[in-house]
Amino acid sequence: MDTLRGTAILAHGGAPTHVINATLAGLFDQTRDCPEITALYGARNGIRGVVHEDFLDLSKQDPALIAKIGRTPSSALGSSRGHVSDEDCERILGVFQAHQVRYFFYNGGNGSMHTAHRMAGLAREKNYELRVIGLPKTIDNDLAETDHCPGYGSAARFVACAFRDIGADNRSLPGPIEVVEVMGRDAGWLVAASALARREADDAPHLIYCPERRLPRGQLLADVDAVYRKLGRVVIAVCEGQLDENGEPFGADLADPHSFGYRMTSNLGHAVAEFLNKNLNVRTRSAKPRVLGRSSAAFISETDREEAYECGRAAVRAASEGETEKMVTLVRQPGSPYRSSTGLAPLEKVAAVTKLLPTEWIHPAGNNLTQQFIDYAKPLVAPIEPHPRLQELFVERRVVS
Amino acid sequence: MDTLRGTAILAHGGAPTHVINATLAGLFDQTRDCPEITALYGARNGIRGVVHEDFLDLSKQDPALIAKIGRTPSSALGSSRGHVSDEDCERILGVFQAHQVRYFFYNGGNGSMHTAHRMAGLAREKNYELRVIGLPKTIDNDLAETDHCPGYGSAARFVACAFRDIGADNRSLPGPIEVVEVMGRDAGWLVAASALARREADDAPHLIYCPERRLPRGQLLADVDAVYRKLGRVVIAVCEGQLDENGEPFGADLADPHSFGYRMTSNLGHAVAEFLNKNLNVRTRSAKPRVLGRSSAAFISETDREEAYECGRAAVRAASEGETEKMVTLVRQPGSPYRSSTGLAPLEKVAAVTKLLPTEWIHPAGNNLTQQFIDYAKPLVAPIEPHPRLQELFVERRVVS
Repeated sequence: MDTLRGTAILAHGGAPTHVINATLAGLFDQTRDCPEITALYGARNGIRGVVHEDFLDLSKQDPALIAKIGRTPSSALGSSRGHVSDEDCERILGVFQAHQVRYFFYNGGNGSMHTAHRMAGLAREKNYELRVIGLPKTIDNDLAETDHCPGYGSAARFVACAFRDIGADNRSLPGPIEVVEVMGRDAGWLVAASALARREADDAPHLIYCPERRLPRGQLLADVDAVYRKLGRVVIAVCEGQLDENGEPFGADLADPHSFGYRMTSNLGHAVAEFLNKNLNVRTRSAKPRVLGRSSAAFISETDREEAYECGRAAVRAASEGETEKMVTLVRQPGSPYRSSTGLAPLEKVAAVTKLLPTEWIHPAGNNLTQQFIDYAKPLVAPIEPHPRLQELFVERRVVS
Repeated sequence: MDTLRGTAILAHGGAPTHVINATLAGLFDQTRDCPEITALYGARNGIRGVVHEDFLDLSKQDPALIAKIGRTPSSALGSSRGHVSDEDCERILGVFQAHQVRYFFYNGGNGSMHTAHRMAGLAREKNYELRVIGLPKTIDNDLAETDHCPGYGSAARFVACAFRDIGADNRSLPGPIEVVEVMGRDAGWLVAASALARREADDAPHLIYCPERRLPRGQLLADVDAVYRKLGRVVIAVCEGQLDENGEPFGADLADPHSFGYRMTSNLGHAVAEFLNKNLNVRTRSAKPRVLGRSSAAFISETDREEAYECGRAAVRAASEGETEKMVTLVRQPGSPYRSSTGLAPLEKVAAVTKLLPTEWIHPAGNNLTQQFIDYAKPLVAPIEPHPRLQELFVERRVVS
């Protein structure tokens, strides 16, 4: 394999996560060990920054600052979303040529992997030597070929802790039925994570619905009624994309048409709460942490952060060794305790593919997850401490019999 | 002062906080130093637990467990809300007599202080010797006579961190205008806390509205438009109780009539987002962390926790020294660094009084806070680390001019 001297570019695609900066830090550290990578540029605001030649010189940044940034959520470089045209790709290639860019690292979801794949194809076609490595990033955990995605573990940790805490609040002051809306349109990976901090049989959430299955309105009412009769309280996990038996979002508003071309609700949890209020004549309430679930610094999973960092290093190593048109993957090692390593998968197998939650991991009752899912996801969120409860040392009654 | 031998009862009133268990722990520790307090009972599920003689023996709990519970949010005892009738008060006195209860500690907001005051009056009337000490607790920070309330610092920390994090996310991927709904109906203490983690001039939130002032719809549109033109992004902090110039909640649904007798919206942030979307033709999004803001364990302010613990100890000391019909207060000491001590105020001055944010702490523009508020609130939330930003080391353009 020939040594290929040149500049490297890192761009971020799609919504930020808790650990996309950790991948940047890993990439930064590894390029410092690769003399053939003469500079590392970061595209500001995603692929738009490449198109518009808007770069920060990452290689000149203070390493201590990069290490610190690597422990904070959101994208320090900025990101972008939206369609990348053929003309954009041509312009990007022009920018690459002008800056002697030979390494292109694109950190994003399946749409970004598709763009990376197109860029690799265009460079090949034009006989411009370019190594393209994709980095997996999505809180939705829906990328193919990888056991899981950097970003998922921390977002799942947020969800698991949110249900532990909202559940404790609801147990303290049982009142309204609590509907909590979790992010996720098509894939239930995140809403399923609401199950991860439960320990006692009556811990929240009491009902979890995954969008892979439609939720008949009658089933929802019967489920809620059964839990309410048993416990006198109900905490429900639903995701933004949950549909009823007719494919309708429980009366939720659809997001404004300036959106990204897909149908998206803007208040599903609220709509479900209203639906329950009207049909069961019970007080209901809803919460919608929304983007807080991918940005709240307090919930970075150490496992997730370390894996994201290692993905950054692995991408540079792979490119340096001559690999191209690959995405870095996470490979779960057999046995216990949990360990992972990195691997590589062809970009074409990842581009624009969505990996749903396996339907056999959804409990047959359609309102819970199986142990298989718990075993899969628990190591990714890192340990979560349950809230202790008081000892049940009751005082004997003297007045009431 | 005579030594008064007897049982002590602790009850929680109203919504739980991050640190109501810390007060329980302080009270538990201090009663162990008071031999005249023969037992400490905890009422399960608030004042209803006293009425129904439903007690846990706290004095027999494992001290290590109590210390652990003292560091977790929500009420380990449970709480209750709703009207306490004269008949309830009579029953409570009967329960007190049956268990030789001579110390009644009631941890709650201004409604609970009112109940505590009534109980003290009834015992006096019936010549039953009872010492009643109230403990302040509310995330709303709206109790009179105290500098601030245990529970506020942690809830304010949640809000401040939420805006830091959502702001970083929004800066990473500028897109929709972000409306974040904060808890609070009449008092703006919590929504104001959204200002506490800002450092750079363009940090979120860019607009903060306090319910003490009505928000004219025209002003809202003009404010948002001005920020959007300047930064290309806007993060807005509003609270559940914000009203427009006509006293209307921007089209939000009013909560169901099974509520606590006061008018409450169930989706104000969403309604404001819809209003902006329709009138400015911009993409908008809303988040509503709701009860997560008073329960999320990751945001306990150490200052708040320590003060809540000390309030528990002070309550027992005061009662042991013969005080009654008082609420423990927090007294800010002059000078820097921040220090507080505990004091006492008559229950009658606290009962059913609501302390609003001083209007002079709201910026004259009506969309921000003054430095006075920041100076007041910052020490209560404990230090918050800002997210670091990359150094602005731009790469010279070679293609685009």
